[in-house]
Amino acid sequence: MRPIALLTDFGWKDGYAGILKGVIWGIAPGVPLADLSHDIAPQDILMGAMVLGRAAPYFPAGTIFLAVIDPGVGTNRRALAARVGEQYFVGPDNGLITFMLDETARRGLSAEFIHLTQPQYWLPRVSNVFHGRDIFAPVAAHLALGLPLANLGKPVSDPQRLDLPQPERSESGWRGQIIHIDTFGNLATNLSASHLQGRGLVEVRLGSLVVRGLVSAFGERAPGQFVALIDSSGSLSLCQVNASAERTLGAKLGDRVEIRFIT
Amino acid sequence: MRPIALLTDFGWKDGYAGILKGVIWGIAPGVPLADLSHDIAPQDILMGAMVLGRAAPYFPAGTIFLAVIDPGVGTNRRALAARVGEQYFVGPDNGLITFMLDETARRGLSAEFIHLTQPQYWLPRVSNVFHGRDIFAPVAAHLALGLPLANLGKPVSDPQRLDLPQPERSESGWRGQIIHIDTFGNLATNLSASHLQGRGLVEVRLGSLVVRGLVSAFGERAPGQFVALIDSSGSLSLCQVNASAERTLGAKLGDRVEIRFIT
Amino acid sequence: MRPIALLTDFGWKDGYAGILKGVIWGIAPGVPLADLSHDIAPQDILMGAMVLGRAAPYFPAGTIFLAVIDPGVGTNRRALAARVGEQYFVGPDNGLITFMLDETARRGLSAEFIHLTQPQYWLPRVSNVFHGRDIFAPVAAHLALGLPLANLGKPVSDPQRLDLPQPERSESGWRGQIIHIDTFGNLATNLSASHLQGRGLVEVRLGSLVVRGLVSAFGERAPGQFVALIDSSGSLSLCQVNASAERTLGAKLGDRVEIRFIT
Repeated sequence: MRPIALLTDFGWKDGYAGILKGVIWGIAPGVPLADLSHDIAPQDILMGAMVLGRAAPYFPAGTIFLAVIDPGVGTNRRALAARVGEQYFVGPDNGLITFMLDETARRGLSAEFIHLTQPQYWLPRVSNVFHGRDIFAPVAAHLALGLPLANLGKPVSDPQRLDLPQPERSESGWRGQIIHIDTFGNLATNLSASHLQGRGLVEVRLGSLVVRGLVSAFGERAPGQFVALIDSSGSLSLCQVNASAERTLGAKLGDRVEIRFIT
Repeated sequence: MRPIALLTDFGWKDGYAGILKGVIWGIAPGVPLADLSHDIAPQDILMGAMVLGRAAPYFPAGTIFLAVIDPGVGTNRRALAARVGEQYFVGPDNGLITFMLDETARRGLSAEFIHLTQPQYWLPRVSNVFHGRDIFAPVAAHLALGLPLANLGKPVSDPQRLDLPQPERSESGWRGQIIHIDTFGNLATNLSASHLQGRGLVEVRLGSLVVRGLVSAFGERAPGQFVALIDSSGSLSLCQVNASAERTLGAKLGDRVEIRFIT
Repeated sequence: MRPIALLTDFGWKDGYAGILKGVIWGIAPGVPLADLSHDIAPQDILMGAMVLGRAAPYFPAGTIFLAVIDPGVGTNRRALAARVGEQYFVGPDNGLITFMLDETARRGLSAEFIHLTQPQYWLPRVSNVFHGRDIFAPVAAHLALGLPLANLGKPVSDPQRLDLPQPERSESGWRGQIIHIDTFGNLATNLSASHLQGRGLVEVRLGSLVVRGLVSAFGERAPGQFVALIDSSGSLSLCQVNASAERTLGAKLGDRVEIRFIT
């Protein structure tokens, strides 16, 4: 059976994520389940899309990503299932799939999208407030059992996409911003290795902090030092060795980060 | 093998919930495990019972709920295993099973209860402080392997039950209270659709907040608006669209919520 | 297949722990996975080692512990796999394995250690910042499939070990300190039953708090009372019944705890 990876903003305490698993195992007993994250900030579609986009390439072909950050539940936003390269996505059509699509396109793989319209693959009673339980989890379970995607509804070609803020060229480099802050307090930006290509020494600036040059590992500097590096997902990140740059600097999502080419 | 769903107040950081899984796999290798919640507030039996009662109906027949919120561990509170309809419960006899029983009774299904007295199904050494590890996890694992419930101890008929506070009739409607606050800050009450049956327009009041009429989906109002709706478990809930009613209102468990029939 | 238990300081929100699972299932589809903890304090090797040492004895023979608290990633710290008794460890060579080794030695079991040097068992591209994903998860997956340990690299005999602070003899008893504080706010010390052996009444002191005698279960005292007991891992612990001793006392890791023999 195809494994299912779960991504939600449900948190852990209320048992909502557990309910998804119960529904799945009612249809596809014992299908392997992996929690990707349930601690996406409430209603934060962009954060969910980024975590999904960064994680998906490391899951095997056939994996089904059940992604439920769904502020539009019960409105006319579409319910979606998709094949993205050799993997699957099930969730609301609100942009969660964006970076998973981008990454797959970079690899030259195709995608197809289905608007979920076949209630025989849902729970018998569908609420207006919990489609994760009533629609998306059952659909993911049926896909895990091998149901063809096309059976689930009507083909569509225009899934919603998010716009990630794009870096801008400056006189001496690039202006970007913080787009993700992780558990360690590392500050990931929308700048990447491609913005540094072929250039020599670089300065990275955030507020009054200036970091000269990039390191390739945290351990190249002493604990407490600030470093700039290309993180595990390819983003230029500002970090504090063995500490939280977020907390020390009071940094927030959206804060401007600038790189300047020195040589 | 029957799947096991885990519900505790252990949190994640200390590895206590992981220990339960190790014990289970030592007896029933590879049995499917689902974390329902480990973030029940410490010693909060009522919250544990509610999360369990809301989640259980969505798990398949045969599921074993291993529920360990156990302030009475090491005292003379009984250790319990039960068949509740077509599912199983293993845990302390302190009321955790209450709403799971209520729900099953509503469906007209029977239950049977066993006081755990057979140490051959426990770990060889039993502490006074961690029966989750020493008694309940091994018993759940044996049940997953198909051991008959009756082998585990002596039948009993009087499991502990909790009293959920009941709404009271008022002149113009009902007085209830907040009984659960979820990750999103939604305020669930002990009032339900049945308290509204056959009535027209309703006002829902919490402190100085007055919400007129119910919506059937969050998206019917703009972000930041307060709404009243029947939530995914059937409770009348007060919510703030794309925000936390808990935080905005400073609401707490037990706060009084009133409904008034206008027409 | 051998099960894999995961221990990290990644937290849940960013999906990093989920990525480990994706990598594992890409190599060993459907291998059973148990989350031991992902909420070890960032870079806190000692806490990780303690949680691992306490949990490992409850997992079955053959279990592979994938432990990634790795402040030295990308430096010359070694990458390690080990057989410890009948279980396995995969992770950085920074002391995480210490108490797992101690416990196994107490049982008279042997251990062997391999410095990971065979890239054919890693991901094709290895970053300098996320060896959990690029080296340790793939190695754990290959072990789960049954690959002999020796294939993974070169035998070594000197794994890094941590020094846990040792209690000191005082005139009237022992001086120790708090070495772990759990979700419940229970204060575990480096004192154990062996420090009390053959002695009568004991006083346990922390700051101005004096607790007389040990209880064997929380329920022997009323809620809110402070008690001393031997916890589920054998540590002398100071606890507050149905409450958080940590919060009430403002206790911290490293705070001195003293026992005095009264009789």
